[in-house]
Amino acid sequence: MTATPTFIEANGRRYARPQQPVVVVCVDGCEPDYITQAIQAGVAPYMARMLEHGSSLIGDCVVPSFTNPNNVSIVTGVPPSVHGICGNYFYDVEADREVMMNDPAYLRAPTLLAAFGDAGASVAAITAKDKLRTLLGHQLRGVCFSAEKADKATAAECGIDKVLELVGRPVPSVYSADLSEFVFAAGVRLLQARRPDLMYLSTTDYVQHKCAPGTPEANAFYAMMDGYLSELDAQGAVIGLTADHGMSPKTDAAGRPRVVYLQEALDARLGATAARVILPITDPYVVHHGALGSFATVYARNAVERAQAREALLALPGIEAVLTRDEAAQRFELAADRIGDLVVVSDHLTVLGTSAARHDLSGLTVPLRSHGGISEQKVPLLFNRPLHGVDPARRLRNFDVFDLALNHASAPTGS
Amino acid sequence: MTATPTFIEANGRRYARPQQPVVVVCVDGCEPDYITQAIQAGVAPYMARMLEHGSSLIGDCVVPSFTNPNNVSIVTGVPPSVHGICGNYFYDVEADREVMMNDPAYLRAPTLLAAFGDAGASVAAITAKDKLRTLLGHQLRGVCFSAEKADKATAAECGIDKVLELVGRPVPSVYSADLSEFVFAAGVRLLQARRPDLMYLSTTDYVQHKCAPGTPEANAFYAMMDGYLSELDAQGAVIGLTADHGMSPKTDAAGRPRVVYLQEALDARLGATAARVILPITDPYVVHHGALGSFATVYARNAVERAQAREALLALPGIEAVLTRDEAAQRFELAADRIGDLVVVSDHLTVLGTSAARHDLSGLTVPLRSHGGISEQKVPLLFNRPLHGVDPARRLRNFDVFDLALNHASAPTGS
Repeated sequence: MTATPTFIEANGRRYARPQQPVVVVCVDGCEPDYITQAIQAGVAPYMARMLEHGSSLIGDCVVPSFTNPNNVSIVTGVPPSVHGICGNYFYDVEADREVMMNDPAYLRAPTLLAAFGDAGASVAAITAKDKLRTLLGHQLRGVCFSAEKADKATAAECGIDKVLELVGRPVPSVYSADLSEFVFAAGVRLLQARRPDLMYLSTTDYVQHKCAPGTPEANAFYAMMDGYLSELDAQGAVIGLTADHGMSPKTDAAGRPRVVYLQEALDARLGATAARVILPITDPYVVHHGALGSFATVYARNAVERAQAREALLALPGIEAVLTRDEAAQRFELAADRIGDLVVVSDHLTVLGTSAARHDLSGLTVPLRSHGGISEQKVPLLFNRPLHGVDPARRLRNFDVFDLALNHASAPTGS
Repeated sequence: MTATPTFIEANGRRYARPQQPVVVVCVDGCEPDYITQAIQAGVAPYMARMLEHGSSLIGDCVVPSFTNPNNVSIVTGVPPSVHGICGNYFYDVEADREVMMNDPAYLRAPTLLAAFGDAGASVAAITAKDKLRTLLGHQLRGVCFSAEKADKATAAECGIDKVLELVGRPVPSVYSADLSEFVFAAGVRLLQARRPDLMYLSTTDYVQHKCAPGTPEANAFYAMMDGYLSELDAQGAVIGLTADHGMSPKTDAAGRPRVVYLQEALDARLGATAARVILPITDPYVVHHGALGSFATVYARNAVERAQAREALLALPGIEAVLTRDEAAQRFELAADRIGDLVVVSDHLTVLGTSAARHDLSGLTVPLRSHGGISEQKVPLLFNRPLHGVDPARRLRNFDVFDLALNHASAPTGS
């Protein structure tokens, strides 16, 4: 008889096989102050208790501080230089076309979820939006479905069907707080029904794009979350919570978006079509942010124009950094062939666009809040258990959350 | 008969003599989102109107983003490299002692307020805390008093007496929102009673250190401000509003302060007392921030230890930049002889301390919010008039607020 191995490996990292269910939650756009303010307002009593008895740390997410690169980093345990997903969207130079990067064909590393499934652990991943499902569920033996298309989940494709019946809720609107609530509700029900060894819950930042920390709507969202986290805890789960990225207001005091249109600036300097600006925030769901984030990449035709573009970009207001491909690949651990010749990061109140005509801001019914830059890199790393054996000098990343929950969280009391 | 000159000069800048009262307001710690959220919550109807018909810009404050360097920059129109005030507190190497920098003896440039007074304009400056009064009122022929010591104002020292009678309010507590309200109330009464040509109102950030933008307490403060601004506007004043610095949460998600104790780290590396850490945020009013900000300077004994200190500092978590004296003096336009051998800036969630034992955090009854770093450099520049003739490529500073209000604000309708 072969003993079950104690550790499961993925991408060069070893994870302890869980003795009780481990639930990792990625709260999209969770600037740490959302939690601080919700606790402060008294609407998150579970999180207050959880952080008193568990652990509260701050980690760095991946820059660009966007959803896809970070969710993929979290489920692979490695940065984009290894897994290849550097944005939601990129310019495929060989094919000469701009493409969404949510096809697993672009994935260069297996997920740890798949490794756990292959090792016989029972695994489930639930995402808010369907765009992430195919990446997170790549080659996963287990359950993987999205709230957005919960009614379409089949046993063949998602490892589960009749999700609406299980959760007892209708399919939520893709632009709503309900979409995230469905993820939590499904997680709680699935834990009751199947008790998976490892579960990953990933929400959407619809609320965070609209509401500042401590405002009534934000507090209501975190109060909702607090209730479900409490239910997961009550079922004995080890909970690790992090975020894909933070969130900042991207407006002046009057609430008007502060946008620097890079393609316009480069066209004026280099002539039309000399440089190509790519906004890796771009995805099919742009209503709440107008495809405006704080990170862009620029493709130039040659070294001379690249230098001219860099100079022109550095002279623009609201720009925090302009890096060459190699500088950006090294500093942010990105795949050099998946970014442009230049990487542009704007400051905490500024977003980057291409040309005014290419951004539909009509959906911005409240002052724009967004992300993508270095200013949204700090994210919470929270656990409902004390951690042990973590080097205090270690630079923690959001993609260490599985390592911390599986390898460093204390055994629950009484186990 | 000599014609009154149209312009008044100060520190190499020319300001148009005002045709109607000009009121410049410095809202201490006014991260732009405070105003955005107050407007959004519907509690600042005047500011909503003001920004619809006037101007809303974002400017850079001086780093260190502290009160004294920025208030002095605003009233001199020049950076600390010219006026010499680089912090609230500094280490006088020659005298070998650490001193408060609120003595006008440290001021290397006259204020534009004094220049206006000398040119026969009627000028008034009202500050919340008395610590600023002697700097702002240096050699000023005009009115200058603090809310904190409003009852002590004498005609001989402050150009005014019976302030409590004028304002109709008691002396407020130094740790209160009332202290700032007193400044606004006094400004409104003074404008009615004496109609000064130029007025400077400078508040305190007691509320901003405690409350996040959009929370009920913050909104109440901005609603209060909104009412007084509306009264100033109704009296025909041109209003320019800016901030000395922004404000960020300096905690983890649980609301615990994220402090890096630099003296402890340097003592461990270099031996005790080899390096001296100075926190220029230090002032006599530390209850609400525990003398914890995001900017520090370090004095080393020699070049070898300076290099060792720099290396040790760069390895610490939460550090955004470590600059040499010359790099910092150039980048932040500081007086090189008023800063240490190294300048340390921490990130938007982190503050810098000396040693744990030297900081009293018992006054932090709510999660710490503070400033001092690059992350608090963006401040509002708001006007109740459209601006004309401002180069869109110009890097705006908070200390351009008098230039913008006096030289670029449109004449009021009907004048």
